[in-house]
Amino acid sequence: MNIHEFLIPPAESARRKGPHDRIVMSSRVRLARNIRDAAFPGWAKKPERVRILDQIRPAVETLPEMRGAFSESMDNLSTLDKQILVERHLISREHAAKSAGSGLVLNRDESLCFMINEEDHLRMQALRPGLQLKQAWMAIDQADSVLEKRLEYAFSQDVGYLTACPTNLGTGIRVSAMLHLPGLVLAEQINPIIQSVNKLGLAVRGLYGEGTEALGNVFQVSNQMTLGEAESAIVERLDKVLSQIIEHEENARGTLLEKKPKMVYNHIGRAYGILANAHSISSKETMNLLSLMRLGMDLGLFPGSDRSLTDELFILTQPAHLQRQYSEKLSAEERDLLRADMVREHLKAVSRPISKPSGSEGGKLDKPEKQ
Amino acid sequence: MNIHEFLIPPAESARRKGPHDRIVMSSRVRLARNIRDAAFPGWAKKPERVRILDQIRPAVETLPEMRGAFSESMDNLSTLDKQILVERHLISREHAAKSAGSGLVLNRDESLCFMINEEDHLRMQALRPGLQLKQAWMAIDQADSVLEKRLEYAFSQDVGYLTACPTNLGTGIRVSAMLHLPGLVLAEQINPIIQSVNKLGLAVRGLYGEGTEALGNVFQVSNQMTLGEAESAIVERLDKVLSQIIEHEENARGTLLEKKPKMVYNHIGRAYGILANAHSISSKETMNLLSLMRLGMDLGLFPGSDRSLTDELFILTQPAHLQRQYSEKLSAEERDLLRADMVREHLKAVSRPISKPSGSEGGKLDKPEKQ
Repeated sequence: MNIHEFLIPPAESARRKGPHDRIVMSSRVRLARNIRDAAFPGWAKKPERVRILDQIRPAVETLPEMRGAFSESMDNLSTLDKQILVERHLISREHAAKSAGSGLVLNRDESLCFMINEEDHLRMQALRPGLQLKQAWMAIDQADSVLEKRLEYAFSQDVGYLTACPTNLGTGIRVSAMLHLPGLVLAEQINPIIQSVNKLGLAVRGLYGEGTEALGNVFQVSNQMTLGEAESAIVERLDKVLSQIIEHEENARGTLLEKKPKMVYNHIGRAYGILANAHSISSKETMNLLSLMRLGMDLGLFPGSDRSLTDELFILTQPAHLQRQYSEKLSAEERDLLRADMVREHLKAVSRPISKPSGSEGGKLDKPEKQ
Repeated sequence: MNIHEFLIPPAESARRKGPHDRIVMSSRVRLARNIRDAAFPGWAKKPERVRILDQIRPAVETLPEMRGAFSESMDNLSTLDKQILVERHLISREHAAKSAGSGLVLNRDESLCFMINEEDHLRMQALRPGLQLKQAWMAIDQADSVLEKRLEYAFSQDVGYLTACPTNLGTGIRVSAMLHLPGLVLAEQINPIIQSVNKLGLAVRGLYGEGTEALGNVFQVSNQMTLGEAESAIVERLDKVLSQIIEHEENARGTLLEKKPKMVYNHIGRAYGILANAHSISSKETMNLLSLMRLGMDLGLFPGSDRSLTDELFILTQPAHLQRQYSEKLSAEERDLLRADMVREHLKAVSRPISKPSGSEGGKLDKPEKQ
């Protein structure tokens, strides 16, 4: 099966709704599992990895929730296909580098995704739009319970599930959410927030996980510890912290609109102006400007438009998604031109952002404002 | 008389036409003259400066071409008034710093301007839109000939007219033009051009003369030498060099449109996008972006608009012109907000720039272009 035909079209994907999706773009819970008495993928020779893949794949495919799934060995996916899966946040960059002996099983609505022979024999993840950590946890827990009967997991009574890296030992759980936090960034409150979250034992990372930049004001928050705490407690703890971050972000947006409305309009207006008129634009600049437009959508500055437009462009403008539309191999410069054409085309229907009517949030234009 | 009521409204000023005004914004010829046996202004005590002012001012006021002129002692002009005259390029920054004992006589259509007790006792200048050096020279030569009969100029048979600074000795002439050269800047050809022009004994300066930056891609070209060459020869030499620069600029624009149309559209589109949507913008950024929009007007990318719009904004958005519209003293931050409001308001009537139709200059959008 062709992965291009399988994946949900970006426009549809961007319209998915979830609780607090103004701020929480998606929730994810993943579990790391390994097969007893088999070498971890980083150590195993190819025949052993193939054997593990052949053992795990049918077990996953026959889960009831995986009916109609996309299931493939990584050597049957092109580099471009793999990059598209990374851009959709369905597989890790590390898994995209794998070939024969590694595999992927993805269900119909992209809410369950199994990476076989990534860092561990099995990494299973449940994904949900908005803040739905508990729902994601329940979905993956259920799949795991069934698989545990079919596969012999490497498990120790003392420490729990064994994993290739000790940071995953125990529960093997990683609970995370992708947060859009332009308000905290504009208000210059993001660094203290990150520090507080770190002190609670949670990690804050960029858009593509560990070691990546927070492009487009998108931050990934996840648990660090996998040992000594029950899965449900980890989920609950993260849920509480996320609720607080959401509140801080909403407050930051409110305060900015009240105290520095023109600063906000300036950032959003310029972002729109550039996106709607550029003829060459990098992926990075696009994401940063789309983030500001998304904030403008949330604040009601683009009447008649909503953030499904920016969220669709967030996906469509990434390098592999752009490349996929052209038969010739594109250089980065060529992609920048085509990206700008695509963004201008999408924004033709969007009018210049409005300022809030006077009296509402102090957005009056005829009186200078002390900043 | 109030200088605000006297000055030509910016909208009208921006609509003035002249030869090659696509590229040559204005032409200017100024002569430096001093009164015999009187100390130069930098050395003279106030009573002597007042005496000189009282001697020169009526002689200038009674020239036929100065009928209805604005004539004032510099101490009767506010700091804001003086700054506005600087922004209109009617007086120098140095003259704006003068007070009692210095004066200004400006004729009705702003084509003749006399600074009394600037660096020299008398600096007279003729101004014209577009490339009109000879016309400007003839106008100022005629005024000078009449004044020479009324005033006793400091003149030496050996070296010519005596001036406060030796760089003006001899003819006391400074012939200059303000050139808008965005094509040469975008094509990265401006530095070799400046070097060649320098080698021909001409100076290239920024928007406000000596020691200032070339904001908005505007460059001032003028003669360096005032000694040993007849005025008409200097005018003619500058005229020839300017014709060559105009040709280089036109060629640069043509080549850019042919070879890198999307780079050109990108710069112009972004400039328009920011100007039409910013809520805070500095004077410097405004000038640089207006310059690109002016280029877009010249290239026909804004059908229905012409460069009188950008040229009016060039004047209106400068600090003193902005301040003048408000009774309260504005901070730089407040000016940036009001400047953005004004620019957005003016650009409401201007649609997004078009790209040239395919086939005309290679501006086709559906095929990637190697840059």
